[in-house]
Parts: sequence; C-alpha cells; structure tokens
Amino acid sequence: MITEYVNQFDRRPLRPLRPVRWADGGAVLMDQRRLPHEEVYLHFSTSEEVAQGIRDMVVRGAPAIGLAAAYGAVLAAAETDTIVADRSPQRWLEQFRQALRPLAEARPTAVNLGWALAQMDQAAQRLLMAADQAPVAELKQLADELVTEDLAEGEQMAEFGAGLIEPGSVVLTHCNAGALATGGVGTAVGVINAAWRQGRIDRVYASETRPWLQGSRLTAWELQQQGIDPCVLVEGAVGALLRDRGVSWLIVGADRIAVNGDVANKIGTYGAALLARQHGVKVMVVAPTSTIDPALASGDEIEIEQRGSDEITEIGGVRVAADGVEVWNPVFDVTPAQLVDFIVTEKGVVKTPSTVAIQSLLA
Amino acid sequence: MITEYVNQFDRRPLRPLRPVRWADGGAVLMDQRRLPHEEVYLHFSTSEEVAQGIRDMVVRGAPAIGLAAAYGAVLAAAETDTIVADRSPQRWLEQFRQALRPLAEARPTAVNLGWALAQMDQAAQRLLMAADQAPVAELKQLADELVTEDLAEGEQMAEFGAGLIEPGSVVLTHCNAGALATGGVGTAVGVINAAWRQGRIDRVYASETRPWLQGSRLTAWELQQQGIDPCVLVEGAVGALLRDRGVSWLIVGADRIAVNGDVANKIGTYGAALLARQHGVKVMVVAPTSTIDPALASGDEIEIEQRGSDEITEIGGVRVAADGVEVWNPVFDVTPAQLVDFIVTEKGVVKTPSTVAIQSLLA
Repeated sequence: MITEYVNQFDRRPLRPLRPVRWADGGAVLMDQRRLPHEEVYLHFSTSEEVAQGIRDMVVRGAPAIGLAAAYGAVLAAAETDTIVADRSPQRWLEQFRQALRPLAEARPTAVNLGWALAQMDQAAQRLLMAADQAPVAELKQLADELVTEDLAEGEQMAEFGAGLIEPGSVVLTHCNAGALATGGVGTAVGVINAAWRQGRIDRVYASETRPWLQGSRLTAWELQQQGIDPCVLVEGAVGALLRDRGVSWLIVGADRIAVNGDVANKIGTYGAALLARQHGVKVMVVAPTSTIDPALASGDEIEIEQRGSDEITEIGGVRVAADGVEVWNPVFDVTPAQLVDFIVTEKGVVKTPSTVAIQSLLA
Repeated sequence: MITEYVNQFDRRPLRPLRPVRWADGGAVLMDQRRLPHEEVYLHFSTSEEVAQGIRDMVVRGAPAIGLAAAYGAVLAAAETDTIVADRSPQRWLEQFRQALRPLAEARPTAVNLGWALAQMDQAAQRLLMAADQAPVAELKQLADELVTEDLAEGEQMAEFGAGLIEPGSVVLTHCNAGALATGGVGTAVGVINAAWRQGRIDRVYASETRPWLQGSRLTAWELQQQGIDPCVLVEGAVGALLRDRGVSWLIVGADRIAVNGDVANKIGTYGAALLARQHGVKVMVVAPTSTIDPALASGDEIEIEQRGSDEITEIGGVRVAADGVEVWNPVFDVTPAQLVDFIVTEKGVVKTPSTVAIQSLLA
C-alpha cells in the first residue's frame, strides 16, 4: 500500500532509495561504506560474493541485511542447480544448505538474516517436495515478496507515525533507521519523511552516532535526498538540544523490543530518551512487529553485543586514541518502556507500552 | 603544598606533567595537538609566537592558556625593553600593552587568559611606579608564582576530592580536566590520580568527548602516564555504563560555575549528570574558586559558545558527514545545581550546592 500524502509543505515525491534489489541475474546493493561521498551500487553474481558484501558492511541495518541474504539464497539456489545435475531433491537441499552457510555466518547478530534464510530454506523444501523441479524462479519471487512486504510495512508505519505528529514539530532522530537500513522506506526516517511532506515538521536534528557515524554519514545524506536539510550534532549535545531548542519528538528505530516494551536500539538511545522525558519531549519508537521478540519478557534479558576497539581508537584508519587504551564498545542499549511514549508498528500504534498492550497488538 | 598520599594501592609517585613552563629565556609548551602520538615540547621566544601557539591549540584548557599567556607577557616585557630605550614609564607601559594585545585576542572565551594578562599588566604598572626600572624579572617571578599557585590549588583539590571517595570506587570522567588543562595537577583528573594512589579507585572510565576527543586523546594518555589504565567509551554509551557497570562517581571539571551552583562544562556533562542521578551515581565537580563567576546568579545566564562545523563534519581533515549538512556545535552545556552532589574547590568542599553554601565558601 502506498500512502497518499496530503503534502501541503513539500509536494515533491520521495526519491525512491533501494539499497537492496535484484537486477541482471544478481543482487544489487548500494555500497553504504562509500556514503555520503558517492552513491555506488555493486552487482553480486554469486552467493559467496553476497556473503562477503554483508560481512564487509556494503549493506547494514538488520532488515536490509535480511533482504540481501534472501537474494544471496536465490543465487545459492542457482549455483546448486549447476552442481546437482541429477536433481535429487535430497542432494539438492543438502547442497543448497551448504551454500547458505556463508550467508548465515556473515553477521552474527542480525536477527533478520537468520529469519530471511529460514524463509528461503523452508520454501525450497516445500517446492522440492511439491514438484521435482529446481525452485530458483520461485525463490527469486519469494525474495521479491520479502522486499515488497518490507516496503509496505514501512509505508504503513510512516502513515501511523506521521499521524501522531503535530504541525510545527521539531524532531531529533538517532542512528540510521531509514531507507538505507531496510528495503527502502525505513522506520523512524520513514515517519519523518511522511510527516515532513504533510507539513508537520519544521526542523530535523540527527545525532552523529559514534562510533559508526550513521547519523552524520547516512541519515543526513538520506534526508538530503528527500529535500530535507537536517542539522547534525554530537551525542554529547543532545542534553543541551532538548533543553534549549524546542524539540518536540525523539523518533528512533529499534533492534529488538521485549514484550513489556523495553527497547534495544543503537547505543545512546537510552540517554536521549531519559533527557527527552526530563524536558517533555515525546519518544516514538518505530519498528515492524517482527522486531518484537516474544521470547523476551523484559529488556534485562537482552544481551548487549560488544564490538572491537578499533571503531573508537581509529577514525578513517587514523589512530586517534592513546595507544593501548582499553575500550568499552557496546552496540546498543536498552531504553525502559516507561520512557517510551509510542511504539509504531505496521499493525498499529501502542501508546504507553506495556506487556498487555503489546500482546494485544500481536494477537 | 604537596599532599602526602597514603598510597596503599599504587606507591609510584605521580609523573610530573608540566604543559606550561619557562626555560632558556622562553615559554615551553607541550604540543597537545600531537598527543597521544608524540610528547613534544615547543620553545617560544617571542610574545607573538606564544599568541600563535595559543591560537593554534598547542595548549588548551582555560588555566593552562592563562599560564601560557602570563609567560607570553614576560616575553612582551622583554621585547618592550628593547624597543623603549629611554625607559619612560608611560611609553614603556603603552608599548607593553600593545605587545599584550595579540595574546589577549588569541582565544576569545578563555576567562583565565584575560585574568592572567590583567595580573601581569597591573604588576607592570605597579613596578614601574615604584622604581624606574624595567620589570621583566619581576614579571617572570609573578608568572612563576601563578604556576605555583595553580599547582598548589590542584594538590589541595585533589586531597579534598579524594577524601570523598570510598575504597573500591569506579569512576567516570568526561573531557580533559587534567594536568594538561592546567599548570600540571588538574582538577577532576587530579582527584582521580590522588584517590587512585590512596587505593580508593578500582577502575576509571573516560568518555571520548566528541568532537575534540579530549577524553580518548588526552585524558587516556595522561592517566596512562600515571600508571592508570583507563577504559574509553563513546558519549552514547554513558547511559549503559552507568546502568550496568557499577560506576559510583562521575567526576568532572568546570568552565564556569554560577553562584547558585549551576555548572557550565564540556558538552555532554549535563546528560551524563542526569544519567548519574537516575542510577545513584554521585556527581563531583572539581574547580578552583576562580571558576565561580560572582556575576552569574544562575546557569541560565551562561551564553553557550558555538564552534565551527568542521569539528563535526571532518575528522583528521577527512570529510565524514554528508556534504553541506548544517551542524549545531555548542562547546559546553549547563548542569543544574540539583544534579551536582559536590563542588570541590581549593578552599573547601560544597555539598549539595546552593547560593548560600557557595557564598559562604567565597566569603
């Protein structure tokens, strides 16, 4: 479904950004390592190349990684067809699963990666049983459907989220929860784009998001593509911003949401949410229901992934920190549900998140 | 006064770090732009060179800048002696003040710079009136005294502050309020060094402090020089740190303190202090009484200086942010007195800062 924006403020259509798509018999990924300097698309014609691309951060953002892996699985199916000449369903499936392994192991923590590969694996199994034929074309169709579904969910969340925003709002977002992190609409940035075009937003701030600078590199670029001039600040300045600059909304994505509404998101979200509460700034978390983990009763159970020290001690390959210094580099933090005003999903909006409210949304 | 540390934990003496001193007829400044990679000292033999060094950030940190300017004034006096041959006191003073101007204009906001130059100017005037002789030697002695006074105040604050810290404490500091920012002991880092040597601190965390990275570049290096292995994190990770890592103290310096106890300090201090309150972490601000501005009733009157966008859009001369993106880059923020547990000065400790408590300290 495509939302028809009222668009009083900015009548230009959104520029479609598609970080993951299929063309010329392979997966085409926007190389996010080269943003914001160059907009380059790479064509991957083998599953191993796609796995390498995911490993090397050509594509990042959990939903986008999942979709890239799905196309990688299509390539794996085509490769399996070449190798397994006799078309024995069992041998085919064995060979296919072996080809999927590098994809599955490309990034350790992206939930969507495992989910997308499981979808492809189950479909392959089903198709092989139903008809004694290679399921390559069907798998390609399924991968396309996953992209279409992601885009539709993004449009729906954008509509729901934008509807909550009062005209004249000033918004802060953190990290990149945009088109670049998904199939092409985004979560938090999708809401911002929609609300901007409905004339509801006067100003967008983006925190730079150390250590990876997703804010100043990706979100700022992505907003510029949509005709929005964002203003970038360091995470340390979020307190002064929310105190002094009339911000009305903090809008972020999520990496994982517990059933009680606790939100794991990019490191720095928790501090920003606490400052938001202190200054009467509303907090909106935008994420599809697939981000809600039914196995997690609360955020206390979310394990915080640690990353390497180089991300902090080096910038652009240049050493900045004192030699040999130890680093603590957690990737995300947990914002308790009490600091979240709204969780916006494709199925609807949860106000003042609680276990009851979230379970009734999922039911 | 030199504190005799009990030193149960780490018996090594502190390594003296002297970022500003006098040698071979000139000012010697540690080049902080080259830290942490190289420890290099530059010798300045003219007042204009010292002004240039302050402008170029060879030395930073308000107290250190003031002391460098004082030695610059000594050089200005010597230069004046060469130019004004007839020793007319009035012509001497005029020429001297002209030579001071580049020093005074080297950095716009460092309060200590103006203060140090005013001290030198007043002394020159007094000396010229008392005896018809060039006051170069006396001014050199006064500049030395300013350094000695700064060191003594640092030692006294270190003793007072360390006394507040329970054994087994875990500490977070922000920015660089250390030897490198002062004559050589520091404020917040002075307390940390003393408490470490008294066996009171188990672990020191330092936030990297975007955009200038004073934490990962300077504080980390400085602590390493004293045998302390700090752990560095991004500002966004302060929330997760204070929630999960058993931190007991946030210890920072101050750029300016209002009479009611509101504290202006490096951007990011306010957010860290709010998180500290949320998690029962005590907040200690360490600053000499000269940092308290009697003209400021509250922090609302503190003007927040903005700096250039390059600090955020470029790192090490390499463009990182999206082209043409706007930047909001305030240098400091204001932490309300209610979030501060202790202000430690050379005259004593103010617990739960208030106008009454601070005025009685200054009386």
